[in-house]
Amino acid sequence: MPTAPADRIVPVILSGGTGTRLWPLSREGYPKQFWPLAAAGTMLQETAARAAGPLFAPPVVVCGEAHRFLVAEQLREAGLAEARIVLEPVARNSAAAIAAAAALVGEAAPETVLWIMAADAAVADVPGLLAALAAAAVAARAGRIATFGIRPTRPETGYGYIEAGAALPGGEAAGHAARAVARFVEKPDAATAAAMVEGGRHLWNSGMFVATAGTLLAELATHAPQVLAAAKDGVAGAARDLGFVRLGAGFAEAPSISIDHAVMERTALAAVVPCDPGWSDVGSWDSLWEIAAKDADGNATAGPVTTLGARNCFVRSEGILTAVVGLEDVVLVVTDDAVLACHRERAQEVKQLVEKLKAEGRKEATEHRRVYRPWGSYEGVAHGARFQVKRIVVRPGAKLSLQKHYHRAEHWVVVAGTAIVERDKERILLRENESVYLPLGCVHRLENPGMIPLTLIEVQSGPYLGEDDIVRIEDTYGRA
Amino acid sequence: MPTAPADRIVPVILSGGTGTRLWPLSREGYPKQFWPLAAAGTMLQETAARAAGPLFAPPVVVCGEAHRFLVAEQLREAGLAEARIVLEPVARNSAAAIAAAAALVGEAAPETVLWIMAADAAVADVPGLLAALAAAAVAARAGRIATFGIRPTRPETGYGYIEAGAALPGGEAAGHAARAVARFVEKPDAATAAAMVEGGRHLWNSGMFVATAGTLLAELATHAPQVLAAAKDGVAGAARDLGFVRLGAGFAEAPSISIDHAVMERTALAAVVPCDPGWSDVGSWDSLWEIAAKDADGNATAGPVTTLGARNCFVRSEGILTAVVGLEDVVLVVTDDAVLACHRERAQEVKQLVEKLKAEGRKEATEHRRVYRPWGSYEGVAHGARFQVKRIVVRPGAKLSLQKHYHRAEHWVVVAGTAIVERDKERILLRENESVYLPLGCVHRLENPGMIPLTLIEVQSGPYLGEDDIVRIEDTYGRA
Repeated sequence: MPTAPADRIVPVILSGGTGTRLWPLSREGYPKQFWPLAAAGTMLQETAARAAGPLFAPPVVVCGEAHRFLVAEQLREAGLAEARIVLEPVARNSAAAIAAAAALVGEAAPETVLWIMAADAAVADVPGLLAALAAAAVAARAGRIATFGIRPTRPETGYGYIEAGAALPGGEAAGHAARAVARFVEKPDAATAAAMVEGGRHLWNSGMFVATAGTLLAELATHAPQVLAAAKDGVAGAARDLGFVRLGAGFAEAPSISIDHAVMERTALAAVVPCDPGWSDVGSWDSLWEIAAKDADGNATAGPVTTLGARNCFVRSEGILTAVVGLEDVVLVVTDDAVLACHRERAQEVKQLVEKLKAEGRKEATEHRRVYRPWGSYEGVAHGARFQVKRIVVRPGAKLSLQKHYHRAEHWVVVAGTAIVERDKERILLRENESVYLPLGCVHRLENPGMIPLTLIEVQSGPYLGEDDIVRIEDTYGRA
Repeated sequence: MPTAPADRIVPVILSGGTGTRLWPLSREGYPKQFWPLAAAGTMLQETAARAAGPLFAPPVVVCGEAHRFLVAEQLREAGLAEARIVLEPVARNSAAAIAAAAALVGEAAPETVLWIMAADAAVADVPGLLAALAAAAVAARAGRIATFGIRPTRPETGYGYIEAGAALPGGEAAGHAARAVARFVEKPDAATAAAMVEGGRHLWNSGMFVATAGTLLAELATHAPQVLAAAKDGVAGAARDLGFVRLGAGFAEAPSISIDHAVMERTALAAVVPCDPGWSDVGSWDSLWEIAAKDADGNATAGPVTTLGARNCFVRSEGILTAVVGLEDVVLVVTDDAVLACHRERAQEVKQLVEKLKAEGRKEATEHRRVYRPWGSYEGVAHGARFQVKRIVVRPGAKLSLQKHYHRAEHWVVVAGTAIVERDKERILLRENESVYLPLGCVHRLENPGMIPLTLIEVQSGPYLGEDDIVRIEDTYGRA
């Protein structure tokens, strides 16, 4: 029996994290949720796919301005183009993001059940999770805010815990039973964690919540009125822009507070569904090693990696040949512009490392070499005193801005696909293996009129080659 | 008082090693001796500079065919263009290389003193070494083959040892005294090494020798007649080719044997000069860590490296940002196409690693991304399905071969310097920021007529882009 539209659950996916502890793969410019880490799809795609199907309405994805095209492209790629993408003008932590989503959905239909989740966790047993969701949804429809309490498999100090209370009457579904929450416990020390795991009454707080929009709005009104007011203000002032819901500036007035502190630790309505779906927050390289497939020596490897006498290592290379000899319990992550070698038990310190790199002014702390734009991506492949070479990929049908530069000339050589180049008054069709020269100061534009991606090599020459020497005259993506 | 020409010592520098244990920096295509490892100059340059000055004649450098332009260029750069570069048609170990050098020099002047050394060792105290050399030369002129016995600073198992015997009469010079050799000891186990260091009579065998050409030839005739015959044959059949001494094919008949086994362990003429010049064979990353400057935590770093809570690590990056968190006793070496992470105490196993990589068919085992040619170098910077991009640097005055390709077209964009391009019947002058298109099948040639290096970006397009699709029609360097 198909689910009636009104009964469909709305997934709310929070995609505002930066995943700093997974540097150098995850960086502010292209964080963790956009990488394939634990499966074939990216974390965002896997998360969205988990909450797709006849039970669900299209998701609401909340993210920052900077990642909007990335979110749209990844959802489109995963066949989820119907998602509503909500843009925060500034990040204001989870309470405000959830409040905005609840206000957006709840205006028209306060009885709608929302399933709130981070975009960057992994789940091994999706049917198991959906069974727990069924119980959580029953509790939600009964007015509760239900959390998923993951049965702990080790005394993890990186997670918060939930102490389960009495069983809730009528809270059973799909073999799962919702219970009251006795209390929330913040990230514990090792001894406390061990005692809690031993005791058997504590569960990991997965950061997923199920509640109706109405319940959330009411509890926010009671416990976090400022957050709610700002979020409502943001929704009221929202603009539809290229298919995105761009929250109004009023959103920025929200205090920056987590939903745990703002609501969950204060509400009388909290419930928890104990479950065991193989959940991991994939918060650090160590936790990724925990859930990864390993060889006989305990090594988890990905990419062109060779080991010799290595044990219990996590080794990942994005392309550069990587060899490990005689090491134990080491994390080694190799990207094209940054390498991390770390003791596996000190994987949490990567956060401090990134702070240190930022303080040293290293752009690799926050930005990748490949930069994503609404029309595709570019990547520096070589540079010298007065030149640099970029590989540019333009998506089918996409078009860069009409622009000019004051300090550089450019050569473009098409190596795959077809380009239309505007150069001052000319309009030039360039096929594979053809090139064009763009002298300093000329007004130009690049477009992919074809059905396959356009790849070109750009050679820039000039005394100053910064990205800020672009005068945009006209832009399809509203950047002029 | 200047040294009379006939009394000048001839340095003989053996540059045939591959330095496998220093992978990924050192590879067969561009091995250890051509890298700056322990000082500002390359190992070869530092070695040659150590043996330059009024005491010395220009050196004889023995190397393989493949490295001839590299040796010539590095010596030229170091102001040692007068070196005689002797090319082995095949590598035949140290006895044959030394025999060829002795035959080459000794024909005309058998009394000439030769100072034989590897191109790839480091010496901290050069004046100390030269003082020991003075004593060794006295012994050599008295008919001895003198070695340098390095006073051991640790129970190293990677070196051979020399047990010193009685002092030689008249063997004193510059505060050093030559002694007879009681015996040579091959690389010992740890216990034997410890006992020898404890005993105080054993010295490290540095692999440097001082003897007259005549003594060497006579001892080779007695103890290794086949080696000598082949080496003499090679010298007799030598051709002068672009300034190189290219040994004749007869050289290949020499048995492959080290000078230690062939002569030193058999001769009655061996002497040893105990000394302490801060010598290291720089045979592994661990030995490089031993001699490197270290920070307060014992870390030796080079390149863009950040450490956080690391201790006693050796970290070297050729350009990619490299971060180490919480590791101890780890070697991490990062190049643009290969990364090695290794326990410092297992640095010897890098040799096996390279064998493994070779067996896996990884080209990074033996070749670098940047490839050196007589005219300069090239380096792949990007590649895709039907294209690749190279950065080409042509030395002032140099000229590539006249060539054509059957499977690819090329775009050349000059980004620094000036080029002359021949294309079929045309001759085109290209300035910075100008480009030329070379269609498939056209006959072309690239030349740098200028005074500064020419850098260009080459974009190749075609279904097959292998280096073997070059038909050379004419070549300045004899490769057509």
